[in-house]
Amino acid sequence: MVPSSRDECLVLDARDALAAWRARFDLTDGLVYLDGNSLGALPRGAGEALEKVVGVEWGRGLVRSWNEAGWMEAPTRIGDKIGSLVGAAPGQVLVCDSTSVNLFKGVNLALDLRPGRRTILTEAGNFPTDRYIAAGVTRLRDAHVESVDRAALAEAFGDETALLYLTHVDFTTGEVHDMAALTAAAHEAGALVLWDLSHSAGAVEVALDGCGVDLAVGCGYKYLNGGPGAPAYLYVAERLQDHAHTPIPGWMGHEDPFAFAPDYAPARSMRRFLAGTPPIVALATLEVAVDMWCECGAAPAAAKSRALTSLFIELVDARLGGWDIEVASPRDAEKRGAQVALRAEHGYALMRALIERGVIGDFRPPDMMRFGFPALYTRHVDAWDAVETLRDVLDTEVWRDPRYAERLPVT
Amino acid sequence: MVPSSRDECLVLDARDALAAWRARFDLTDGLVYLDGNSLGALPRGAGEALEKVVGVEWGRGLVRSWNEAGWMEAPTRIGDKIGSLVGAAPGQVLVCDSTSVNLFKGVNLALDLRPGRRTILTEAGNFPTDRYIAAGVTRLRDAHVESVDRAALAEAFGDETALLYLTHVDFTTGEVHDMAALTAAAHEAGALVLWDLSHSAGAVEVALDGCGVDLAVGCGYKYLNGGPGAPAYLYVAERLQDHAHTPIPGWMGHEDPFAFAPDYAPARSMRRFLAGTPPIVALATLEVAVDMWCECGAAPAAAKSRALTSLFIELVDARLGGWDIEVASPRDAEKRGAQVALRAEHGYALMRALIERGVIGDFRPPDMMRFGFPALYTRHVDAWDAVETLRDVLDTEVWRDPRYAERLPVT
Repeated sequence: MVPSSRDECLVLDARDALAAWRARFDLTDGLVYLDGNSLGALPRGAGEALEKVVGVEWGRGLVRSWNEAGWMEAPTRIGDKIGSLVGAAPGQVLVCDSTSVNLFKGVNLALDLRPGRRTILTEAGNFPTDRYIAAGVTRLRDAHVESVDRAALAEAFGDETALLYLTHVDFTTGEVHDMAALTAAAHEAGALVLWDLSHSAGAVEVALDGCGVDLAVGCGYKYLNGGPGAPAYLYVAERLQDHAHTPIPGWMGHEDPFAFAPDYAPARSMRRFLAGTPPIVALATLEVAVDMWCECGAAPAAAKSRALTSLFIELVDARLGGWDIEVASPRDAEKRGAQVALRAEHGYALMRALIERGVIGDFRPPDMMRFGFPALYTRHVDAWDAVETLRDVLDTEVWRDPRYAERLPVT
Repeated sequence: MVPSSRDECLVLDARDALAAWRARFDLTDGLVYLDGNSLGALPRGAGEALEKVVGVEWGRGLVRSWNEAGWMEAPTRIGDKIGSLVGAAPGQVLVCDSTSVNLFKGVNLALDLRPGRRTILTEAGNFPTDRYIAAGVTRLRDAHVESVDRAALAEAFGDETALLYLTHVDFTTGEVHDMAALTAAAHEAGALVLWDLSHSAGAVEVALDGCGVDLAVGCGYKYLNGGPGAPAYLYVAERLQDHAHTPIPGWMGHEDPFAFAPDYAPARSMRRFLAGTPPIVALATLEVAVDMWCECGAAPAAAKSRALTSLFIELVDARLGGWDIEVASPRDAEKRGAQVALRAEHGYALMRALIERGVIGDFRPPDMMRFGFPALYTRHVDAWDAVETLRDVLDTEVWRDPRYAERLPVT
């Protein structure tokens, strides 16, 4: 039964086993925040963690904290925690650099590991930075990108395919690829896979080891709630690590960085994929958030996000039927991430009007309004309020105000 | 006259025009911190800046802060400020990634800009990460590294030389290269230059534009005091920018990132060298520190550091004459960075004993004790206390305690 009132949604929240998590985030009362798929909310523990890492460890410990405060281990320690959320056994995930830089490492690793093969197979709709990075790699070395439609992927493998290179959950529609089937198909064809989990970790269940994945990357600041521009992560399956050499062999990936040896010798572990000095302050807020994720667990969160996105779609169907608004996300919850995209001709102006009314989503060209439903802090009543506010914006035609059509730098 | 008492050093501090800056750092009373060349001290303003960027901008503004809190401009805004400290006009410095990643970008840019030339000329003693990164580039593309002794550099250029690739201030001895002369020699030979300023910015005067430098990188967490693992920076001379394509073309370097265009189009500005999303929280502490530097100015700071390192060397000569301790840094202050290296057979154990007695320096293999003299918070009396503590450690032979010889992961 689709709820027919806000009170019915409040009842759903009262019954929600994860509802208490919201109090651990610092969210403004009255705000309907549905953009955690772009920037996750602030964990209340972040301030205390920063006081510790900045005030105590940096301020008092100074350089001694590299030995005494666990700074050197942060990339692997937090990496293992993220690993536990995406089905990776310890020793395979490293928190470092940005998603873009880790994509660059991953594509190069794959080409190294499949000598003689030169095709990077991707889909036309892959996230822009993924596409740009792969094209950048082809400027440096003998490789080329083959970009096909999603439906044609399974048939597109050839003897030249070195890498299947995909984002697991589409950044606009939230459509989920079948990681197990596509990974198996790639391996069948002699290729490796690299999955971008930026819209997956904290949104849907992921089983990297279970699917036999080779390489993966992901973002720290979306569902993981690590903070704006938080460090990203890189997964390299253990069986590949000894044979894989990072294209950016910085000193932190050296077997013994503080020997200051003239020649590079890669660490005999996942650490070999580090480049520069770990960003300790940024890692501190990410670790607070990741610890919360580990406490909650990925599966209950994914289930709640599915319930919320299903509710949102049902409410759109039930209450916006008279308007030309199309649900662009899969209606099958199992094929959907933790976000819903609505297609509307004037989507940009509609979203600007929503944001001004305290319903924060975002817009992706050409016509997609995106609404994210992170499980840890999003309520059933948020889905209700978002749909009702959108209905009001449509009914009153306030979105026609020309200022809503003016593009902002960041959408 | 070399001071002959601690009180004489206190008088020097009382007359020091920059002495008041120390109060703007959060330093433990009684600690003699001489390792700001490895990790700069904590500016007192950092906590307030973090409360603003985390508590207000992230917590309250959430994703809206990309438009409303100046987040998008942070890499160029802070870059221009750093530029003003190293003699670079606005529009040429970007704060982003780690030093290692920026070195990788710079080496590739140089090879692109000098097609047909394939030699990266460096010195044997260049900082390890610089060496490792150059070697990494040669695994990806047709290039090779020629590594010569410092004295042989000027004669080592050839028709094949694409890039002269050096660290301006040596990370052990603090010896300063002649940036103007070597840059001119490289240009004469048809090569570009890339200077690593990690031990220069905040330590010595640098005139990137004045010397006609092509490319430079530097570190945010040493003399600049940006915090552990703070973001690094990249300089690309304006005349080269339009012709230079980053090897890691992430979405933030796109001309219009939020168009989410399928193909990469580089920004028509320094922004084209960005890769991933800017690390906003880490940038906040760096900006606090860089603002202090801009207020003080690079030249007075460099002059004070020269005075401090000269005092330290004089005290070593005057008071440690009976011991086998060699000053490994240049005795000419104009040829020296803001650090002094002392060579001693048991340097590692000596440094461990010093650290336990509250004199924090560090050690670089095989036998170098390093002492840094950042101008903003180091006192003349710190030089006195360090030398006297070292004298005591030597006199009492406490350094012979076997536990001081045990190696820590980070030295």
